[in-house]
Amino acid sequence: MKKSLASLKIDVQQETKQMVAVANAADKEVLLAVKAALKEELCFFLLFGDEAQITAIAQHIHLDLSTSEIIVRHERTDEAIAHAAVLAVHHNEAQILMKGNLSTNQILKAVLDKEHGLRTGKVLSHVALFEIPNQDRLLFLTDAAMNIAPSLQEKAEIINNAVHVAHGIGIKQPKVAVITPVEVINQAMPSTIDAAALTQMNNRGQIKDCLIDGPLAFDNAISLEAARHKGIHSDVSGSADILMVPSIEVGNALYKSFIYFASAAVASIISGAKAPIILTSRADSAENKIHSLIFALVSSKTF
Amino acid sequence: MKKSLASLKIDVQQETKQMVAVANAADKEVLLAVKAALKEELCFFLLFGDEAQITAIAQHIHLDLSTSEIIVRHERTDEAIAHAAVLAVHHNEAQILMKGNLSTNQILKAVLDKEHGLRTGKVLSHVALFEIPNQDRLLFLTDAAMNIAPSLQEKAEIINNAVHVAHGIGIKQPKVAVITPVEVINQAMPSTIDAAALTQMNNRGQIKDCLIDGPLAFDNAISLEAARHKGIHSDVSGSADILMVPSIEVGNALYKSFIYFASAAVASIISGAKAPIILTSRADSAENKIHSLIFALVSSKTF
Repeated sequence: MKKSLASLKIDVQQETKQMVAVANAADKEVLLAVKAALKEELCFFLLFGDEAQITAIAQHIHLDLSTSEIIVRHERTDEAIAHAAVLAVHHNEAQILMKGNLSTNQILKAVLDKEHGLRTGKVLSHVALFEIPNQDRLLFLTDAAMNIAPSLQEKAEIINNAVHVAHGIGIKQPKVAVITPVEVINQAMPSTIDAAALTQMNNRGQIKDCLIDGPLAFDNAISLEAARHKGIHSDVSGSADILMVPSIEVGNALYKSFIYFASAAVASIISGAKAPIILTSRADSAENKIHSLIFALVSSKTF
Repeated sequence: MKKSLASLKIDVQQETKQMVAVANAADKEVLLAVKAALKEELCFFLLFGDEAQITAIAQHIHLDLSTSEIIVRHERTDEAIAHAAVLAVHHNEAQILMKGNLSTNQILKAVLDKEHGLRTGKVLSHVALFEIPNQDRLLFLTDAAMNIAPSLQEKAEIINNAVHVAHGIGIKQPKVAVITPVEVINQAMPSTIDAAALTQMNNRGQIKDCLIDGPLAFDNAISLEAARHKGIHSDVSGSADILMVPSIEVGNALYKSFIYFASAAVASIISGAKAPIILTSRADSAENKIHSLIFALVSSKTF
């Protein structure tokens, strides 16, 4: 079956329900997302935060906290909330960590805690999954939000993290296009040299379980016709699953252009820790929050 | 009237016809574009190249070379063709330079010739003009193809070149968004520092006849809602005319995502020389070639 965000939701609904730890659930938008997820029967929730506040907001939006699908754990300070939510994932009481009404820095600090955090020794990276109206498959974009200007080794790890997640959604041998402005190696554009190195790291078995090709310009990666026009024949060109960009500058602009100009639906998680982390922000639509939850749930089985 | 590529065409059709010098017209795709432009009554053509070849191809595609709207000038080598076409613009015999079946390097070499070229002392930069289906205005993107990693001073000149062109299409005070991954100044992202400097250069009158604001993330630049969400209130956010990106990596990927994912129509020229230069490539659709010609014709009056 062709994969879509809708088909991933069905995959999640057919699996055993997992537990999602929410770091500071005392927020209307967050609890509305919880309510929507419960209605779709996606998962269970472990809600951390001020119990009185959570209860008041839940009443206001008609979310029943007495259901067996929700557990509320009272914590007051942001630091304590972040610590407790991360610890629940650390002890495998929950399989997903979700940021609620907390700063990203606060939650990452707890994630990176050496003793009680979710470190694995890998780079943490942002993996976005897009459903674009005129494209025939889901597309991953990495890294649009976490690593500013990754080194070659960090790029290799960013690819590994995305490949890992792609396996989770059932793509056995994901095709990775390393995106640059041109398809030739050009000394004046260091990203083209890194792209060539990443391709050879794949050929030498240093990056496994995927097919990497680069440098590829954006059009060569996603259009077979554009690739043929340039005389590029590879297993990746025109059919890339993962678009790996050289910097946050490229990733962030592309991410937002897909949403605003191409009317794309998006899901995103942080990969590289012990469990998928959802860092969606207030600016994300309710729909995109649910998509990210689905993405985290479906990919968590390979974590 | 709302500006669109169609309205720009009408603007061109209502003005006195200008002359376009084509450097190597001995090519079917190029002569098909010439034929389409003549049918739309956009301009006159001065065609440089091997006369016998041009005549043979013209016959094949039923293009009448005996019309008063076309002059053919016989030149044989690529170097001679580039030199002669550039010289025609240098002497104001033609107002636009268009690359035909020549390499970009070859034509730029002639353009940059100190004695017979089209230098003005300014940086040459690529300016793309997009019509995006779900957006209510035309959008400029610069620089997606020419300057790899411009310095602050080069960025200022790139903005000047785009502003100049925007004036040409009738936008008196174009709004320039300097695009970065975030809307705050962050020392780890030098593009945000340059963006702040460019904004202040505008405030100090070092860059004139436009309104600059940056750093702005892509969404802040084009969506008022996204800008408000971040607490950004400026005259540029949400209504930018010109998206100025920090590098060719960002520009090229965005350019192609607009075309492939957002089904955008595009026109592009090189600005900064004595006249607009059209560098479209074989990969460009016939429609985009005509759009670029219209864009060059309508903006040439401010050159």
